[in-house]
Amino acid sequence: MTLPVLGLPEISRAATADLVFAAVRDALIAHAEGRTSVPPPMVLDFPAHSGDCHVKAGYVEGAPYFVVKVASTFASVNNGVMLLVDATTGAPAAVLADEGKLTAWRTAAAGALITDAMTPADVDEVAVLGTAEQARLQVEWLRKLRPLRRVKVWGRRPVAVRELCAVFAADGLDARPDGLDGAGCVVATTSARSALPAEAFRSAIHITGIGTDMPGKGELPVEVFADALVATDDHGQCLDHGDFGNAVRSGVVADDVDLPLGAVLRDGIDRDRRSVADLTGIGAADAAVASAVLDRLRH
Amino acid sequence: MTLPVLGLPEISRAATADLVFAAVRDALIAHAEGRTSVPPPMVLDFPAHSGDCHVKAGYVEGAPYFVVKVASTFASVNNGVMLLVDATTGAPAAVLADEGKLTAWRTAAAGALITDAMTPADVDEVAVLGTAEQARLQVEWLRKLRPLRRVKVWGRRPVAVRELCAVFAADGLDARPDGLDGAGCVVATTSARSALPAEAFRSAIHITGIGTDMPGKGELPVEVFADALVATDDHGQCLDHGDFGNAVRSGVVADDVDLPLGAVLRDGIDRDRRSVADLTGIGAADAAVASAVLDRLRH
Repeated sequence: MTLPVLGLPEISRAATADLVFAAVRDALIAHAEGRTSVPPPMVLDFPAHSGDCHVKAGYVEGAPYFVVKVASTFASVNNGVMLLVDATTGAPAAVLADEGKLTAWRTAAAGALITDAMTPADVDEVAVLGTAEQARLQVEWLRKLRPLRRVKVWGRRPVAVRELCAVFAADGLDARPDGLDGAGCVVATTSARSALPAEAFRSAIHITGIGTDMPGKGELPVEVFADALVATDDHGQCLDHGDFGNAVRSGVVADDVDLPLGAVLRDGIDRDRRSVADLTGIGAADAAVASAVLDRLRH
Repeated sequence: MTLPVLGLPEISRAATADLVFAAVRDALIAHAEGRTSVPPPMVLDFPAHSGDCHVKAGYVEGAPYFVVKVASTFASVNNGVMLLVDATTGAPAAVLADEGKLTAWRTAAAGALITDAMTPADVDEVAVLGTAEQARLQVEWLRKLRPLRRVKVWGRRPVAVRELCAVFAADGLDARPDGLDGAGCVVATTSARSALPAEAFRSAIHITGIGTDMPGKGELPVEVFADALVATDDHGQCLDHGDFGNAVRSGVVADDVDLPLGAVLRDGIDRDRRSVADLTGIGAADAAVASAVLDRLRH
């Protein structure tokens, strides 16, 4: 048995932004329409090494492969592989040794797609919470969908805030270490266990949260959900361990107010209404991106 | 990044019966003592291709690797791979492209260990329910632990029963297509959704069930659990989707009567009492066997 292992250089060549955006968009819409299989993820914890490992599986109906993804974070270093399996025979087809990059890109693409779809078209300023990889990627990928003029960065470590501002400035953005103040669009990317005060979000017409992926985490103050149009990438997951679930448990919103992200992408919304998108990451997006990458590498 | 993929020939050389028995025994005892991490498995169904895929993850505390196993069965053909991940760094260490064989062997080893531990020492006749790979393996691996003289085979297809009897006869066993009648020890290996009548098991002092791995399956009549000493490989899994759970839901036994298999292997039991062992397969056994195989291949 020869099982090909494809490394990051090959994967990077295949996974263009167009490919990733298209695959993620299709997967989110398919998920909203019930055309995906996504069992509840598995989590293993390794507290002695500040590590955890998330295993996600997913399948988009009609796709040639289903995907099992193993994504670990140890001492803040992401790693992982995706295994593609033939959905008609059950035979392993390939391993994408992507070092966690496909997850980073599909997360960036999903966040950017929904931030763009829910934020008024004239907003050209975004604030990011957090200074790690996703803070950078969310802005970079959003810029592929709409022009941005200014970025505000909020983080707990001033050095990291200045460094990220320098990266954005080098890319031609007006980058400011200003926190959230006055931003019309906020993208929250931290794995925080406590939220900023609701006051900090008062100018935001749209908020996207992508950092809350486990019970006990929560980066958005529950008040931002009140009276907002709410979209979730997976109703059950967001209720279980997303910021949406925190808001429901605190009584700020009912547990059935959310729309599926895919329905928002497919049908659009009234973008002048205040909105919050909660993303916890779905295996169907992994499956769609990995399938598209393997398909491109094989043809 | 180079991720080694080890194929079945290498794996087969490393995975001796001694290695598999020792790893499975240690894993079952560790599991009984709470020294393992085993998240609930994931299942994906592919009804159009008579397929399903089970994803199991497991870790035995202190081991160098944790393991994510992808095991598929499409049109009765088993396949699969195991991914080993460094438990101190989260980095992928190797893929064992074992085509499902390590699962088959650890299932055979677990079944044989517990059948041997719970069956009176003088019993040298075993009946197997089912005619597929595990029916053969359960007998072959039990013979590595105790001498067997006679095997009775029960199956729904007479041709398959005769073929399996011929295989056993070629191995020097007195093999009979007799069904269960009179057998003191029964090993049930089918994925049946309906059970044989309890009457068929009336001579059995010990029954091991290894075939019930999903809700809706059940190969043992619930009556066999009444007043029996019951052992389970994982209390929660067996309650959720094992034969034990079927017996509990039908009211034949209380949901807390079971002992962990690992405790039986560690401490022994009174083998003159009627007993039933329910095995649903645990990720910790996969982890232990795969770790031991990789360790042997690297040293």
